Amino acid sequence: MTFSKPNLSINGDRLWSTIMETAAFGATDDGGVRRLALSEEDRLVRDWFVARCDEMGCTIKIDALGNIFALRAGEDAHALPVAMGSHLDTQPTGGKFDGILGVLAGLEVFRTLDERSIRTKKPLALVNWTNEEGARFAPAMMASGVHAGALTLDEIYASRDEQGITVREALETIGYVGNEEMGTTQFDAMFELHIEQGPVLEAEGKAIGVVTGVQGMRWFRIEIGGQASHAGTTPMALRRDALATAAELMLAMRQVALDNEALATFGTISVENGSQNVVPGKVNLTLDLRAPREEQLDAMEAVLDALAADQRYASTPIRHAIIWRKAPVVFDADCVEAVANSAEARGLTWQHIVSGAGHDAAYVAGVAPTSMIFVPCLDGLSHNPAESATVQDCANGAQVLLDAVLGRAGIVDPEVAAAAS
Amino acid sequence: MTFSKPNLSINGDRLWSTIMETAAFGATDDGGVRRLALSEEDRLVRDWFVARCDEMGCTIKIDALGNIFALRAGEDAHALPVAMGSHLDTQPTGGKFDGILGVLAGLEVFRTLDERSIRTKKPLALVNWTNEEGARFAPAMMASGVHAGALTLDEIYASRDEQGITVREALETIGYVGNEEMGTTQFDAMFELHIEQGPVLEAEGKAIGVVTGVQGMRWFRIEIGGQASHAGTTPMALRRDALATAAELMLAMRQVALDNEALATFGTISVENGSQNVVPGKVNLTLDLRAPREEQLDAMEAVLDALAADQRYASTPIRHAIIWRKAPVVFDADCVEAVANSAEARGLTWQHIVSGAGHDAAYVAGVAPTSMIFVPCLDGLSHNPAESATVQDCANGAQVLLDAVLGRAGIVDPEVAAAAS
Repeated sequence: MTFSKPNLSINGDRLWSTIMETAAFGATDDGGVRRLALSEEDRLVRDWFVARCDEMGCTIKIDALGNIFALRAGEDAHALPVAMGSHLDTQPTGGKFDGILGVLAGLEVFRTLDERSIRTKKPLALVNWTNEEGARFAPAMMASGVHAGALTLDEIYASRDEQGITVREALETIGYVGNEEMGTTQFDAMFELHIEQGPVLEAEGKAIGVVTGVQGMRWFRIEIGGQASHAGTTPMALRRDALATAAELMLAMRQVALDNEALATFGTISVENGSQNVVPGKVNLTLDLRAPREEQLDAMEAVLDALAADQRYASTPIRHAIIWRKAPVVFDADCVEAVANSAEARGLTWQHIVSGAGHDAAYVAGVAPTSMIFVPCLDGLSHNPAESATVQDCANGAQVLLDAVLGRAGIVDPEVAAAAS
Repeated sequence: MTFSKPNLSINGDRLWSTIMETAAFGATDDGGVRRLALSEEDRLVRDWFVARCDEMGCTIKIDALGNIFALRAGEDAHALPVAMGSHLDTQPTGGKFDGILGVLAGLEVFRTLDERSIRTKKPLALVNWTNEEGARFAPAMMASGVHAGALTLDEIYASRDEQGITVREALETIGYVGNEEMGTTQFDAMFELHIEQGPVLEAEGKAIGVVTGVQGMRWFRIEIGGQASHAGTTPMALRRDALATAAELMLAMRQVALDNEALATFGTISVENGSQNVVPGKVNLTLDLRAPREEQLDAMEAVLDALAADQRYASTPIRHAIIWRKAPVVFDADCVEAVANSAEARGLTWQHIVSGAGHDAAYVAGVAPTSMIFVPCLDGLSHNPAESATVQDCANGAQVLLDAVLGRAGIVDPEVAAAAS
């Protein structure tokens, strides 16, 4: 692989105004964006995106799930393209950056190369993945999943939104059923730039997160039994209080997560037939466990099993069932190193980080060398109209993306590029 | 006060068949009773009750809230009557004993005295209090509350059920607006027999609970703040997890209740906009504190205040508001002793107990010497079709009631009674 480091700077202001330009498609009064997958707003931003790539001379390919591949020719017509990409759809109450930054930073990379007339050895690709969010149609990341062969086209076509509309019908409505077969466009590598969607980089004061992988995840449904009884007449010692056991379980699992440097979240809880003056007889709750390594998840699940088997809870039995699991993803070492080297060379502060959220890159990692670049977002907020990143953060991310991509793709004549800057 | 202990035994089988007879009014398929206050089923059982008392020669008085007083003449026409009483209404999914036992045991006392032709010195009264349960019309114990001057007739008349029907209208519909002014019938004393509605007597193997008072109660609404955030991207250390704080609060208050020999119950809990993969940003819960003495309630509330003020919870603030309070009731020492002496004299196992639930006796205690007699119920269950007490338990309670009442009322010629037994 040829590594070259021409002094090429992306245009942070241009990137920023492009972000603001697309934020108009589905803009909400509170400064957020509502651009559900395959909606009219999604069609508008897709049309805009295709037009921008088309006017730069890219070849546009659209596959059967509406994934858009904008290909920029390289010197070696037989080489696989080095890809960049993310998604342009948002949550119902989404912001201006989640996904969007990764696509538009790729566009900024193309524009920077174009204005310097730089030709890469390997071709480049810029991808807009369909329905990453999974808000209108489940599951999330469906189209990168089918691309990578982890999901089937038929099952995804049949997924319906709340109105009963299928993915296939919605694609037809907005005219984005492409004629490219799924998975046809293979990559030499893929880099996805994304806001962190968490508070770590901000708290640590780092400009760049070099993403080493994506956490694994296990979801549990937990039911705790007991005996509903009168709050005034049942002595504490004779209670079978399902909610008291739930409280102990929640604190125990929190401690286990801390001990394992992992995450445990109880996101919902309810008391069946709960009433102010009735000792809870049944409680339902959900548990989300995440960790970078399977053995961490195993260790946490073992504690949950042990608590459920503990005789201490014989009178308030803990029943748990795993309802979803996703193995951790480890990104390609060369791609990760490329991102770290790029950040380092630009003098940006950085740290390794594991993505807590799922991303299209997690699926793509199954079929191509992949990594991700994170930039901080205000207060770690995401999926929220208040989602915010600075001009500088976005520019930093796009710069590292450019450098990593060029390092992988190679430049036909680096001296020309250096002179032109 | 004349104390006499004739060897008078109530008829346990007759009491039992009377209980089963009235269980037909509002019987449900699952063996329970649904006899909401002032419903047609309530009218039927009231008519039955009035007929039974009338045929024994009692004077029937009905007050403006439909409380029924069946008066049995005594030798001293000027003395206040010694009263027995409870309620014939039930919860929507109620059982055969809650309240009913106390009224029908009083009827059994009258029948026992009648068949032995025993005349008491003071007159006797048997009361059916209207709407003890508060299930159809709030609040509970409304009619004994107005009788005792703790509530006003106007506010209670205006209380509406879910269909918008007022208490006044419902009373008119079933023909139970009496012409007796509220509070006219004063008592020398009142004894209320009731199932325990808790598991203590059963667990301790005691036949009789000698009730020394009714617990005080304080109800709180608690809201815990925080920051909703991504379950996958927010490190444990950076979370503002309202539910984790709720778990700590619940366990802390449980410990406080244990330390104070009191009761703390969190009966409901919910996460605002809770989702499996979102760290809870706001939690609402309710807390019910009960104890026999104000200082115990004060101590528990002080701990709640301290937790709310604790800097440890600055990022997940605990806000609490008291929404209801009821001071503890201490029953009359002579009446309590009369119950204890009666149980002891009959060779029944007994213990002192504080009622955890409210009862009409708690209001009556404000205007007359009062106490209660508890008998065990299966598994401590109440407000449930499975509510159950044995023939023997019911008979024990009725026997102690008879003895305590006779001890207070006196018998005109105890020797006659003793010879007749």
